[in-house]
Amino acid sequence: MSYVENGKSYERDTQYIEDRILDDADAEWPVESERYRLVAARACPWANRAIIVRRLLGLEDAISMGLTGPTHDADSWTFDLDPGGVDPVLGIPRLKDAYEKRFPGYPKGITVPAMVDVPSGQVVTNNFPQITEDFSSQWTRFHREGAPTLWPQELRDEMDAVNKRVYTEVNNGVYRCGFAGTQEAYDAAYERLFTALEWLEERLATQRYLVGETITEADVRLFTTLVRFDPVYHGHFKCNLRKLTEMPNLWAYARDLFATPGFGDTVDFTQIKQHYYVVHSDINPMGIVPDGPDLSVWAAPHGRERLGGRPFGDGAPPGAVREGERVPAADNPHIGADGLVTFGKV
Amino acid sequence: MSYVENGKSYERDTQYIEDRILDDADAEWPVESERYRLVAARACPWANRAIIVRRLLGLEDAISMGLTGPTHDADSWTFDLDPGGVDPVLGIPRLKDAYEKRFPGYPKGITVPAMVDVPSGQVVTNNFPQITEDFSSQWTRFHREGAPTLWPQELRDEMDAVNKRVYTEVNNGVYRCGFAGTQEAYDAAYERLFTALEWLEERLATQRYLVGETITEADVRLFTTLVRFDPVYHGHFKCNLRKLTEMPNLWAYARDLFATPGFGDTVDFTQIKQHYYVVHSDINPMGIVPDGPDLSVWAAPHGRERLGGRPFGDGAPPGAVREGERVPAADNPHIGADGLVTFGKV
Repeated sequence: MSYVENGKSYERDTQYIEDRILDDADAEWPVESERYRLVAARACPWANRAIIVRRLLGLEDAISMGLTGPTHDADSWTFDLDPGGVDPVLGIPRLKDAYEKRFPGYPKGITVPAMVDVPSGQVVTNNFPQITEDFSSQWTRFHREGAPTLWPQELRDEMDAVNKRVYTEVNNGVYRCGFAGTQEAYDAAYERLFTALEWLEERLATQRYLVGETITEADVRLFTTLVRFDPVYHGHFKCNLRKLTEMPNLWAYARDLFATPGFGDTVDFTQIKQHYYVVHSDINPMGIVPDGPDLSVWAAPHGRERLGGRPFGDGAPPGAVREGERVPAADNPHIGADGLVTFGKV
Repeated sequence: MSYVENGKSYERDTQYIEDRILDDADAEWPVESERYRLVAARACPWANRAIIVRRLLGLEDAISMGLTGPTHDADSWTFDLDPGGVDPVLGIPRLKDAYEKRFPGYPKGITVPAMVDVPSGQVVTNNFPQITEDFSSQWTRFHREGAPTLWPQELRDEMDAVNKRVYTEVNNGVYRCGFAGTQEAYDAAYERLFTALEWLEERLATQRYLVGETITEADVRLFTTLVRFDPVYHGHFKCNLRKLTEMPNLWAYARDLFATPGFGDTVDFTQIKQHYYVVHSDINPMGIVPDGPDLSVWAAPHGRERLGGRPFGDGAPPGAVREGERVPAADNPHIGADGLVTFGKV
């Protein structure tokens, strides 16, 4: 598959299906328990956000989840991990089928995460930043007891500013490095990325979380890039000024979140590596998947408690991961029998 | 250019032109000052050995040096850094011309280092391990005063054993990772490489140098791989269990050697990165050269003096690098005006 256009900078196609599922009985797509299915891939950082937020808020009963495999062909993410290669709820082998159901001949990328209306089998939206925001704002009736406030009203402006910079420079910045079609485009992307990481490194020296005193969605959004940094972006995308493990504050911050229920317990390192190294044949033509890095380092004490902060504020962490949604220990050596990360429980 | 054979493990072609230049007036190729030219490339680890040994022993007057550029086509290393793209002594644009002069239709790889007989323009040998060994054993009449003994007789057996393991598992081991044509071949190569690095990490915990109390050619041979590890092998060849900077003893050992005259002052990081990332188009098709890693870390104090040892034994380090043979500071930020590394002078 071709991700790189020779001679060009990488530009993400940000035209999504922008419908929203709203807490309004008269809406075209009203919030309704057990009606919609989140289709995600553990490999994908944008989908990983939705997996984390769904679990932090306790939406597992209200919104079911289908998981595609880590690799896909030019056409679509596929349900190749499911028995018979078919999603058991939607009854389709390819996510593309749900896009086609909504818009026959759908011309754009088949992306995860996607919210699918189960009765009609149609994709409602794949607008990833809106999906997680709406999990917080529209699905409140179904939040678990003790669910964290991931978008505190009083921090909204600060979060918007931080999220914007993190998105353009970091979340998408790593892709701009990896899919650069010229040396100049790569050089510019690399410079922007590490300038932003430097800013984050300083910001996190004196505060435990990115915005405010508790975890917010700003942390979720940064985490999914950080957890992929050394396994994928450092080598595969040439983001190699230094590793995450060589940026002390960011690295301790990432370990702190990793140990927080809802974060590290959603991370499947094997699927992450498989996805990038196999799918991007234009930058890794042999499809060899690296055996590194050493993942044991995630268990080192992070020491971030000294900065204060309470991860869940007045709430509480989510409990064990439900069966059927647990990451296998073979894919993340820090996963225990209850599906949670085995160290640093808060 | 194709280095990887799909479905196969990488096997280095070790059939070289095995003639030797001997300290024997009746030899076919007798030692003789100003008769032979070492053709090397700063990019290449095997050639880097010869550049280091020539300088440690002070053979610059006796054996001149021609340097090819970092990249080459399918055919040959070329003298593209020289005015007019022609080696000023041999008068040829491509190293291949000297191989053809010796053996018309020469069917094997055109490799560096090569020793060329200047009067006839013929390659005498490209047998790299023998070339440096002969610099020590055959060219003694021309060694500088204070030149180190790189092959101490009493350590010969130990050096042979160490060199053998370092060659198969590390020097060539990184290539077996990078040019693996199957996942299984890569996995096996990676395991062997890091097992050997673990052995070296332990060995260097209690001794300053690899064999004995002074620098030997065993150190030269390991150094040229270590100095390329983070800039190239870690990412490009997927040797990514950990970086050199994450193996404390090996990393301090590498910095100690780097600061020792004759080692770091031969290292051209820009040419090293250019070579691997541009030439190996079958594993890096876009030819983008990474901007990392951060090279400033080489200047951190290595603290290896506590282990004792005297780098040059009863001898002395080589002096300033001669003009015309200095690595530009743009390519190695630690090079000063005299061509030497600017810190840690012994």
